[in-house]
Amino acid sequence: MARVVVDVRLKSEILDPQGRAVQGSLVRLGLGKVSNVRQGKQFVIDLDGDVNDETLKKLHELAGNLLSNPVIEDYELRVEKA
Amino acid sequence: MARVVVDVRLKSEILDPQGRAVQGSLVRLGLGKVSNVRQGKQFVIDLDGDVNDETLKKLHELAGNLLSNPVIEDYELRVEKA
Repeated sequence: MARVVVDVRLKSEILDPQGRAVQGSLVRLGLGKVSNVRQGKQFVIDLDGDVNDETLKKLHELAGNLLSNPVIEDYELRVEKA
Repeated sequence: MARVVVDVRLKSEILDPQGRAVQGSLVRLGLGKVSNVRQGKQFVIDLDGDVNDETLKKLHELAGNLLSNPVIEDYELRVEKA
């Protein structure tokens, strides 16, 4: 079994109002010196069997188009157990 | 500057309909053998200065109560640059 984790984050030039709101709350609740907060999504995908090159290619294709919106988001994909 | 990443995921015993929907889409779009998908949130927090013990304690307190709902979610916190 393999576990693939895909982190999806807004591109840095895109305004992140949710992150901004969280930043305000963190500061109000006593965490000083927060310079920036970004909120993203994370997908944890469990696969039967190993991750071969073909599967990895398909995963990148799906991560870049289904799991993230390439216009405003970047994704990071890592295989945790191969 | 320090970067702290907080991953928030539904507890494993909690049903995740969003993850289930993503799982269905991944399979339909050609990724075979997906046994499970969970969708979570990720917070990337940039802090000025170092993360000392006091800051870390505060971060855990806020991650466990503000960023996640302890009834249905677990969180994982890691410091990426200290």
